[in-house]
Amino acid sequence: MTERRADPEIRLARSYLLRVAEPPAMALTAFIRVYGPVRAARLVREGECPEAVLAETSARRTLDRAKSDLAEAERNGARLVVPEDGEWPAWPLLPFDQVTQRGLRGFAPPIALWVRGDARLDEAVMSAVAVVGARAATGYGEHTATEIAYGLAQRQMPVFSGAAYGIDGAAHRGALAAGGVTAAVLGCGLDAGYPAGHAGLLKKIAETGLVISEYPFGTPPARHRFLVRNRLIAGLTEGTVVVEAGVRSGARNTATTAGVLGKVVMAVPGPIGSSMSAGCHQMIRESAATLVGSLADVIETVGKLDSSLAGRTPRPRRSTDGLGEEAMRVHGALELRAGRSAEQITTESGVPIHRVRAVLPELELDGLATRAEDGWRLTSRSRPVTPAGGGHQGQ
Amino acid sequence: MTERRADPEIRLARSYLLRVAEPPAMALTAFIRVYGPVRAARLVREGECPEAVLAETSARRTLDRAKSDLAEAERNGARLVVPEDGEWPAWPLLPFDQVTQRGLRGFAPPIALWVRGDARLDEAVMSAVAVVGARAATGYGEHTATEIAYGLAQRQMPVFSGAAYGIDGAAHRGALAAGGVTAAVLGCGLDAGYPAGHAGLLKKIAETGLVISEYPFGTPPARHRFLVRNRLIAGLTEGTVVVEAGVRSGARNTATTAGVLGKVVMAVPGPIGSSMSAGCHQMIRESAATLVGSLADVIETVGKLDSSLAGRTPRPRRSTDGLGEEAMRVHGALELRAGRSAEQITTESGVPIHRVRAVLPELELDGLATRAEDGWRLTSRSRPVTPAGGGHQGQ
Repeated sequence: MTERRADPEIRLARSYLLRVAEPPAMALTAFIRVYGPVRAARLVREGECPEAVLAETSARRTLDRAKSDLAEAERNGARLVVPEDGEWPAWPLLPFDQVTQRGLRGFAPPIALWVRGDARLDEAVMSAVAVVGARAATGYGEHTATEIAYGLAQRQMPVFSGAAYGIDGAAHRGALAAGGVTAAVLGCGLDAGYPAGHAGLLKKIAETGLVISEYPFGTPPARHRFLVRNRLIAGLTEGTVVVEAGVRSGARNTATTAGVLGKVVMAVPGPIGSSMSAGCHQMIRESAATLVGSLADVIETVGKLDSSLAGRTPRPRRSTDGLGEEAMRVHGALELRAGRSAEQITTESGVPIHRVRAVLPELELDGLATRAEDGWRLTSRSRPVTPAGGGHQGQ
Repeated sequence: MTERRADPEIRLARSYLLRVAEPPAMALTAFIRVYGPVRAARLVREGECPEAVLAETSARRTLDRAKSDLAEAERNGARLVVPEDGEWPAWPLLPFDQVTQRGLRGFAPPIALWVRGDARLDEAVMSAVAVVGARAATGYGEHTATEIAYGLAQRQMPVFSGAAYGIDGAAHRGALAAGGVTAAVLGCGLDAGYPAGHAGLLKKIAETGLVISEYPFGTPPARHRFLVRNRLIAGLTEGTVVVEAGVRSGARNTATTAGVLGKVVMAVPGPIGSSMSAGCHQMIRESAATLVGSLADVIETVGKLDSSLAGRTPRPRRSTDGLGEEAMRVHGALELRAGRSAEQITTESGVPIHRVRAVLPELELDGLATRAEDGWRLTSRSRPVTPAGGGHQGQ
């Protein structure tokens, strides 16, 4: 399989577009959708665009640093991932139409993402869980964040967080300690070195995981950017665990965003006297979050969401162990990122078409296959197994 | 007001009936309801009753200690309260028909109650809250139980519990410390002196509160009696707070019973590593209990039940203070119990339809409006405000 990569022209256009408006730029995003990135970039540069797009872009329209941004990123070991790349994640934010209709401007998808690190973005978001919380965390909170992140990472579930002090840092470190993938999503450029005390941590994260930002190099951190960044943490993951949070906190903002985006929101309880648990308790109490009292609770809760989105039976905690030879061959013919028709699966698996048609819905009920627009796909949690077996622990 | 007191004949009959069958005696209770206590007692004594009633009463039918039970109680400063007394509490258990229909035999109302203490039973149950939990409580749990009970008692809300070691004892003590009413409901006779270490506590409770039991003097404690007793704790109170509970525990049984009886069930969270909080966390996670993180949460939750029963609106969690004039007009056009279309809201509020469509999702995000099947509704937590303002703290 050859990797799909965007044209250099497209990357250049999106590099320009990403800097020309402060995210989230809803009108610009819609404009790009209509005209495509290359033409949209040209029209914005010329000022030939609707009022709303002009409003978003007028301050920086003439500032074309697309080439130098890309060059600087390359010098710094970073890259720009664009929706036209194979690596672009199946975007889990609300469908565009819904975003516009519901007036949820704050939840626009990113135009592109600056990324540092060797992990593939589409793989890193698979089964990813956000673990976030207060900067002024307690020892209990940091310990809990580390433990949960460690356990998730051990189970090949990437841990996303915001690289802040306190809970965020503990989460990243827990995932790193387990040798798993962790991703830090920043509210500033990848070179901002923020927070200062986490420079080493961020470097380490990039070695095996990812450091991600919507902001071009040179963008300083700012309060509003953290809030905008929170939607990426929420949107790129299957669910968000708030470990500790005061009654008003950024972590709660991420959680609220996750809820709006249809993601599962979880909160860890703590002693009722602790102000750092008060936000978590409030969220649970108001049914804005599900209580998670253990790693198992987190995994179960995230799994539940999967199946509720699919509108069907529970998620595949299970392995393919119980499958017959035929079902296993059909399962083995499925792919994660491309749908296949029953006919293609027949050709690939050697299983007769009428049996393929019978087996696929069974795999679907078992949470092992998914009906997608372009045909049948492997469910993201499961993976192909060989009839020879092995891997009895599922995964 | 002259106090209604049952005829001595009725009290005698119920004294007999209370000992003749092990509670909860569903068939006997139904039989009493049909024939009245005096005739029912005579028929049971003569064995002239249906098979089901015979089955419940055959072992003790001929044992008539009604008079001596009443005499012994009097000698010990106790009394038998019967449904025919003015002091009998408006019984909060499920209506009798429902109990039979739903086959909820375990939830039958008591035939009468042995009571020691000067408080009136009907007054003691008013706004009463059960505070229960594990015997093997932690310091955190006991401290929390004491604090909550203290706060409730201070606010004239009687605290019910089971007089066990651990959480129960802490709850009684907290209420006593505040000079409030507390009631201990026992799974044995009032003279059983159980648990031994709480003899002094029980004596103290009876001085200002109540010690209550379905069991005649001389009845020893037994495991099944504690479970039967739990329905009285749940049934006599407005809500039950579980402070600490293991995954399997008697406190959870009380809570489950409270849920079945339509009472509010609350649980206090704790550190996730504590096995004594695991039962509470599980109940919250499974939506079997509402998280309470403070005394204020308990009062609010019990109050909510009141208002939801009464069909009134609870008080607003979030004020509408921050809303603009337009949003306030849209908000003011919403109703709690009937959905409205955007068109109707436009007519009502005078706000243009496109703005109504934009504002509604914002109100939803703020938790002030809810999308229902029949249109947009006021979120039950909020309430209409006048643009004139006022009440800035919410309430």
